[in-house]
Amino acid sequence: MKALEKKILEEGSILPGGIIKVNSFLNQNIDVGFLMEMGKEIASIYSKEKIDKILTIESSGIAIAVAAAMQMGVPVLFAKKHKPSNIPGKVLTAPIHSYTHNNDYTAVVSADFLKEGERVLLVDDFLANGAALEGLIEIVNQAKAVVVGAAIAIEKGFQDGGKRIRAKGIRVESLAIVESMTDDSVIFK
Amino acid sequence: MKALEKKILEEGSILPGGIIKVNSFLNQNIDVGFLMEMGKEIASIYSKEKIDKILTIESSGIAIAVAAAMQMGVPVLFAKKHKPSNIPGKVLTAPIHSYTHNNDYTAVVSADFLKEGERVLLVDDFLANGAALEGLIEIVNQAKAVVVGAAIAIEKGFQDGGKRIRAKGIRVESLAIVESMTDDSVIFK
Repeated sequence: MKALEKKILEEGSILPGGIIKVNSFLNQNIDVGFLMEMGKEIASIYSKEKIDKILTIESSGIAIAVAAAMQMGVPVLFAKKHKPSNIPGKVLTAPIHSYTHNNDYTAVVSADFLKEGERVLLVDDFLANGAALEGLIEIVNQAKAVVVGAAIAIEKGFQDGGKRIRAKGIRVESLAIVESMTDDSVIFK
Repeated sequence: MKALEKKILEEGSILPGGIIKVNSFLNQNIDVGFLMEMGKEIASIYSKEKIDKILTIESSGIAIAVAAAMQMGVPVLFAKKHKPSNIPGKVLTAPIHSYTHNNDYTAVVSADFLKEGERVLLVDDFLANGAALEGLIEIVNQAKAVVVGAAIAIEKGFQDGGKRIRAKGIRVESLAIVESMTDDSVIFK
């Protein structure tokens, strides 16, 4: 998505440790008009697939998941990053390591909201090492639901998450793939 | 908002400790069509006010904030609940106690995204004891921005947050106010 690449170049910045900072429009301050454009793009990419539900993970996946869901007319389910006291009953969980924050957490969704055979699109803002996405895949598998594919805003193509997940036969579509970056430049695939 | 009261009665449930569980449509599984209706209602309530930005707090405020922002054509800024490694530079912070999870955290937003004089609408899914909303007010005050008001999906009218914040002269509009509840009934104001 050319408009996203342009936005990253114009408004994003690079921090030490391979971090692409896009909090001016994507994951802290949200440009809602642009968010809707990304939602439309995701809906268009997956327009030939039957999708029952979008699954994402808190927090920064929620906005883009809502934008895509709005275009596709499906609900959004978001995994929580620990076990809050107000999710009772049967839950689906997956352990996830966050490389960004260097900690481990458990992604949790109530089993009430993901049923056997449901066709699920995974949506997130970033894909780097793939830990979060693999956790969501694990949760869908636990529910015996079906992963239709994943839609990501920004993939770090120089980390191996996308490659590893595609190698499992899962369709992963990223609106922008950063092939390489230095302190002051970003090259897209 | 009658449709929200109806939805709470039909799809919500009551848990011990005064918890209204609405995770089937609001804060885990999101009914995106209904979310948009709530966004329209918020935009309508505040249609006579000039608003530059919506401020909410992760995670469950994000979806309804995005829905309202879409109707109002303004960006959403969301406070994070700790200091993540990828918010550099100057930040605005407020300490908050979560009664739901019985812990303390710091709400953080980058000072880059909230400027002096900006007119801010606060949006959240719940208002109970008011701790989160007061934290957001504190952040807006630190930025020397202006709190136009707050828009809440569900207020627990039997807890004192709404009363205390309204007593400060801040406009608080809740789409549904639960006046009282027992194990098997909910009475709206």
